[in-house]
Amino acid sequence: MMEFKKLVPYREALKLLLDDINEIEDTEKVPLREAVGRVLAEDIVTEFDIPPFDRAAVDGYAIRAEDTFQAREYNPIELTVIEEVPAGNVAKEEVTTGKAIKVLTGTRIPKGANAVIMQEMVKREGDKIYVLRPVAPGQNIAFTGEDVKKGEVVLRKGTILRPQDVAMLKALGIKKVPVKVKPKVGIIITGSELIEEPSEEGFKEGKIVETNSIMLQGLVEKFFGEPILYGVLPDDESIIKETLEKAKNECDIVLITGGSAFGDKDYAHKFVNLLFHGTTIKPGRPFGYGEKVFIMSGYPVSVFAQFNLFVKHALAKMVGAQNYEVKVKAILQDDIPSQLGRYEFIKIYYENGIARVIKKKGSGILSSLLASNAYLEIPEDSEGYRRGEEVWITLY
Amino acid sequence: MMEFKKLVPYREALKLLLDDINEIEDTEKVPLREAVGRVLAEDIVTEFDIPPFDRAAVDGYAIRAEDTFQAREYNPIELTVIEEVPAGNVAKEEVTTGKAIKVLTGTRIPKGANAVIMQEMVKREGDKIYVLRPVAPGQNIAFTGEDVKKGEVVLRKGTILRPQDVAMLKALGIKKVPVKVKPKVGIIITGSELIEEPSEEGFKEGKIVETNSIMLQGLVEKFFGEPILYGVLPDDESIIKETLEKAKNECDIVLITGGSAFGDKDYAHKFVNLLFHGTTIKPGRPFGYGEKVFIMSGYPVSVFAQFNLFVKHALAKMVGAQNYEVKVKAILQDDIPSQLGRYEFIKIYYENGIARVIKKKGSGILSSLLASNAYLEIPEDSEGYRRGEEVWITLY
Repeated sequence: MMEFKKLVPYREALKLLLDDINEIEDTEKVPLREAVGRVLAEDIVTEFDIPPFDRAAVDGYAIRAEDTFQAREYNPIELTVIEEVPAGNVAKEEVTTGKAIKVLTGTRIPKGANAVIMQEMVKREGDKIYVLRPVAPGQNIAFTGEDVKKGEVVLRKGTILRPQDVAMLKALGIKKVPVKVKPKVGIIITGSELIEEPSEEGFKEGKIVETNSIMLQGLVEKFFGEPILYGVLPDDESIIKETLEKAKNECDIVLITGGSAFGDKDYAHKFVNLLFHGTTIKPGRPFGYGEKVFIMSGYPVSVFAQFNLFVKHALAKMVGAQNYEVKVKAILQDDIPSQLGRYEFIKIYYENGIARVIKKKGSGILSSLLASNAYLEIPEDSEGYRRGEEVWITLY
Repeated sequence: MMEFKKLVPYREALKLLLDDINEIEDTEKVPLREAVGRVLAEDIVTEFDIPPFDRAAVDGYAIRAEDTFQAREYNPIELTVIEEVPAGNVAKEEVTTGKAIKVLTGTRIPKGANAVIMQEMVKREGDKIYVLRPVAPGQNIAFTGEDVKKGEVVLRKGTILRPQDVAMLKALGIKKVPVKVKPKVGIIITGSELIEEPSEEGFKEGKIVETNSIMLQGLVEKFFGEPILYGVLPDDESIIKETLEKAKNECDIVLITGGSAFGDKDYAHKFVNLLFHGTTIKPGRPFGYGEKVFIMSGYPVSVFAQFNLFVKHALAKMVGAQNYEVKVKAILQDDIPSQLGRYEFIKIYYENGIARVIKKKGSGILSSLLASNAYLEIPEDSEGYRRGEEVWITLY
């Protein structure tokens, strides 16, 4: 009878795995509208200043600040408005002493002007304005390059693009963004006990509804991958072997669930040259990895833990994604005893700084995943935490 | 000359707005594969227990626990294996005293058995197994309804569906999920100064590259909406009026940028019966709302703040989304003085519990959005915070 001779410590297993996974080289160019959520494949360097010219930051009058230094409530300074620039135009005239040009927000600062006074701050009569307070040089001007300077790296390789990042790319004149190609992730589900939907008959025969495929598809998509489903296979050694070969040929990595232990029906590990098999993680101990194949459990909660502790990090490395996790500090509302020697994956419900432990145990308990929105990792050498302690958790 | 007579306090403005926005009634059924990110329109109640039967939680032998109570290392108890259940099958025999049936993880517990002993815990010889330690009743059995009980609400209306939620829906036999229809969000961009891409010529004429449309499209999609773009309009009163009417007819809400202030080119507010116009938020003060129309600024950073402080909450209300924001506690690394009377939207870079203030000022400064991943709200009556203080921030 086989079993795990030695459980590989989590950090060691993760290192073995990540050392074997390479960042993929392939990039593609996608239109801006499809770029949100994708991972930038190159540093983006600006080729011009933004703003590209000094411009008005408010609606008002472009003036020479010096003209207003003596302005007081009791000593209004009169300036003559020599031009009014319509929206989207530039001034034809130049501002000289005693003169002003009416500008709108965004208007290029007219020659000779070095400040803009807000229109609400002056009194206008005919072509005259009256300034009641001094205006500082540079006031209400958005200067050339104030947002981004020519030659500056404005977005770094590895950025997971957000709407505001894409807005900047548009400002730079980029129409198609170089992003990492999504890694192809083969998903193989095994288990003769699995059925596609619940039925009285199926239950009588002891069958279980298969849920790992749709969960893994969603998780893979969330973490930059393109899931490719290879079906739900019976516990048949030759079918599993054949499908695994096919998936390995067609995909960058392969996730196979249900064959991770040493039960009579667990074949997957036989067909792969494993770097390790059996780790200290709990749940999910029978996890194994080799030849880009992730040998995962059948239980949804174990699969979920294995995804978060291993697959997620591998996918992030493959596309070079930065900051793909949100870690927050939270105060524990419960004691969590932890087993020495095991690296525990504790399901947490996080809200407003408080971490509550989801108590439902058992790696088949899907409802415990639904009730949680974060996880806490407890290393092998820790006996756990006490209520009131501050811990770092990772949001799903 | 018009201007804001009184700025409406942020909370008051938000309440006026949300009171005017209704949850939309329309729901649609989408396949599970398209449900991630959508908002559940109904409570989901289970129609059967999960698991639907007592099942083995490990590979091993289904036995009567009582048979093993005297088992010791020095007093092994012999049991006869009367059947081996293959994967995906059920036992034909019944377990009686002195008997055992070999089961796999997930196998329905055979009649007569009340515990499962892991196969690693017994010694097997021929059709006999030897038990060395007592087994407790119920051990290694996943009981009927342990995950979810019949009649239980397993997912609540308003849940933003995640891969694990969808897995549960599959377990329940749900093939199409009732979700809220995405609110149609019209986006109108105004400004004669706007061009579609940067060009020397455009810059010479004082033009600015338009970036709000793509940013708003991405933000609307992130927060449950379907963006519909009505183009980039020149500052032409009749064109704006006409487009606004069209968008109001076709959409659930309308966002219009660039016409929010009282500048000569700011028309939008003239065509809408506003509930309020001008709020204490900073940046983004000229925001106005009425008749499902959101009158927004032209500056990207103001638009971004207005989206987060108003539009996001409106969209969440329209679809009834719960927990659509992540709030975390962070330690400030910088002093933040704040203007009394203004509700400040402070851009933050959050990492590992530390909040750093993004210093670039100016509502045109798109790069400040790129550098940030969270925001801090400072109410009107606060003079700000000091370095080292703990504050609540909202992650983008």
